[in-house]
Amino acid sequence: MPDETSPENPEPGDAAPAGEDQLLAGLLPELPAGDLTELGPGDDAAVVGTPDGRVVVTTDALVAERHFRPRTASPEDVGWRAAAQNLADVAAMGAVPTALVVSLVVPARPPRPWADGWTTSLARGLAAACARLPGAEGCGVVGGDLTGGDQVVVAVTALGDLGGVPPVRRDGARPGDLVALAGTLGRSAAGLAVLERRLQRGAAAWAGGSGGVESAADEGVADLVRAHRRPRPPVAAGPAAAEAGATAMLDVSDGLLRDAGRVGRASVVAVDLSSELLLPHVDAVAPAADLLGLDPWELVLTGGEDHGLLATFPPGAVLPEGFSLVGVVTATTVPGALLDGRPRAGGGGWDHFGA
Amino acid sequence: MPDETSPENPEPGDAAPAGEDQLLAGLLPELPAGDLTELGPGDDAAVVGTPDGRVVVTTDALVAERHFRPRTASPEDVGWRAAAQNLADVAAMGAVPTALVVSLVVPARPPRPWADGWTTSLARGLAAACARLPGAEGCGVVGGDLTGGDQVVVAVTALGDLGGVPPVRRDGARPGDLVALAGTLGRSAAGLAVLERRLQRGAAAWAGGSGGVESAADEGVADLVRAHRRPRPPVAAGPAAAEAGATAMLDVSDGLLRDAGRVGRASVVAVDLSSELLLPHVDAVAPAADLLGLDPWELVLTGGEDHGLLATFPPGAVLPEGFSLVGVVTATTVPGALLDGRPRAGGGGWDHFGA
Repeated sequence: MPDETSPENPEPGDAAPAGEDQLLAGLLPELPAGDLTELGPGDDAAVVGTPDGRVVVTTDALVAERHFRPRTASPEDVGWRAAAQNLADVAAMGAVPTALVVSLVVPARPPRPWADGWTTSLARGLAAACARLPGAEGCGVVGGDLTGGDQVVVAVTALGDLGGVPPVRRDGARPGDLVALAGTLGRSAAGLAVLERRLQRGAAAWAGGSGGVESAADEGVADLVRAHRRPRPPVAAGPAAAEAGATAMLDVSDGLLRDAGRVGRASVVAVDLSSELLLPHVDAVAPAADLLGLDPWELVLTGGEDHGLLATFPPGAVLPEGFSLVGVVTATTVPGALLDGRPRAGGGGWDHFGA
Repeated sequence: MPDETSPENPEPGDAAPAGEDQLLAGLLPELPAGDLTELGPGDDAAVVGTPDGRVVVTTDALVAERHFRPRTASPEDVGWRAAAQNLADVAAMGAVPTALVVSLVVPARPPRPWADGWTTSLARGLAAACARLPGAEGCGVVGGDLTGGDQVVVAVTALGDLGGVPPVRRDGARPGDLVALAGTLGRSAAGLAVLERRLQRGAAAWAGGSGGVESAADEGVADLVRAHRRPRPPVAAGPAAAEAGATAMLDVSDGLLRDAGRVGRASVVAVDLSSELLLPHVDAVAPAADLLGLDPWELVLTGGEDHGLLATFPPGAVLPEGFSLVGVVTATTVPGALLDGRPRAGGGGWDHFGA
């Protein structure tokens, strides 16, 4: 709940950000109520329905200059991304996101080039992610905490409902299972590369957010930048995969090979990816890779933060909408990820399989 | 869930703290599983049972040098306090705490005088609060996120189960209701005053935590310091109050008068506190107040962070164990808090009633 620490409250330093009531007054109206919310912000805690009788819970924080740069991401972008990465984690269990709560550390002055009122913009970004990511529409932002601090931190906790299906863990993949992916690969990493290069060239044009940026840039490149700033995890595909009997699933946040390796090790199998089946993903980022002088395979295999969902399904399963086949699960004495049946040599960016 | 961001992951700066795997290896074994936990740390999200069909959720962060000073609080103390303040918020709705998740910002070097391994100590503090606060024993620490950053931030989200009772909100107090309190008043504020004075005198003795401090100090003062470092909210009293039909309740985090005023304004009544009924609380802090040259009434009426529970009950209700009568609810045209039927003049530290 919003921390209403009084200025007289005997605590070291200034626990509440200046003008907290004003910040809250701007921010609260932006927050979506949520379909299952029984009590929203304003009390000691919120109350959210859990029809399944269990709740899925995950938390992930974004820290300024670690996970984002205020020079290249607007407060809306950061709110969106903070929501999206947590929504993806809920979806990766097979659950429908129901609620977010947010702890926000607010420095005395906005980080450059953000303006006063950025907390309201960030709330708008949280709300936009819930509203516009199919599968997250019913998710509310039901509570939070504002506190002072030296640097912006956005710590989001997401809840979800399993709707009667068992949670889809990482350790259920079995030899013979199909390996399938929903969402994109390598696009966020390519977008970040664009931003970092522009920053290196010095970019006054970045001040003030995303407004003038895309219009000045090639449309394809602009799409990649957008993919980095506002990742679009296929939230609805998570519960659909659970319904379809997915045996294992995770959110691809650290790169396909690395995350496939996690499923492999947790399940004690090899997740064998097929370069032929990944070709459409490579083709999709090839023009951008060319432009940037990057290897499209590297982007697809190791680029993180598109927050797609990697899942395994029993042999013969009909893949749910949004998923495409990318490989097969095989028995192995060295659990991890393979590409075309072999450990991929070299190429940084992934956890060497079996290590 | 623990963020396993790879070092190769293309992100600005260093998103994961150095040696994250090692930090996790030290920290995870400290975390209590929790009675209702179906899936703990290690996957994209945790799964916790919600027998009531609803979940109570709240979040609150502690920021170094804002809410605590590493010079006067050990990592265990900070973990305890981060857990306790969230457990109190859950209890204040009438719910039993079931699970915590924690987002932890970990600077490259420990803040002085904390040592390497402080994240494990902090986890131990979270666990100790759950284990030792009656009413929180079944609460697990089911997930988290470690990330790099400039200053320590501990953002805890707590979940709770209502066990079939309606949530106890702030806005249900009615004229004629009894006003009752569980827990202590003014002790945390007095303990903080002790610490701040010692700091002002320069206190090399504080390095390394609480070990040598209490032994060197008067036992009563040591108790107050402990009350500040490790507040003991009466967690079990929350669900007991809900069972007993409490009409309103909140966690007293910002001082009795201020928080009573919140109940009054939310419920559109006057929460009329009785100085006679508060006398035992005043007597309890009087020796410490004398020693510190503080006004014991000021401590009791405005001192925050003991995290007691202030509740209202229907006339004639039998107060549940742990609660004692401190006033009565009256009708008013100026909602807020009263002391002996009148607004309390002067005395900073509370929100002037009716404002």
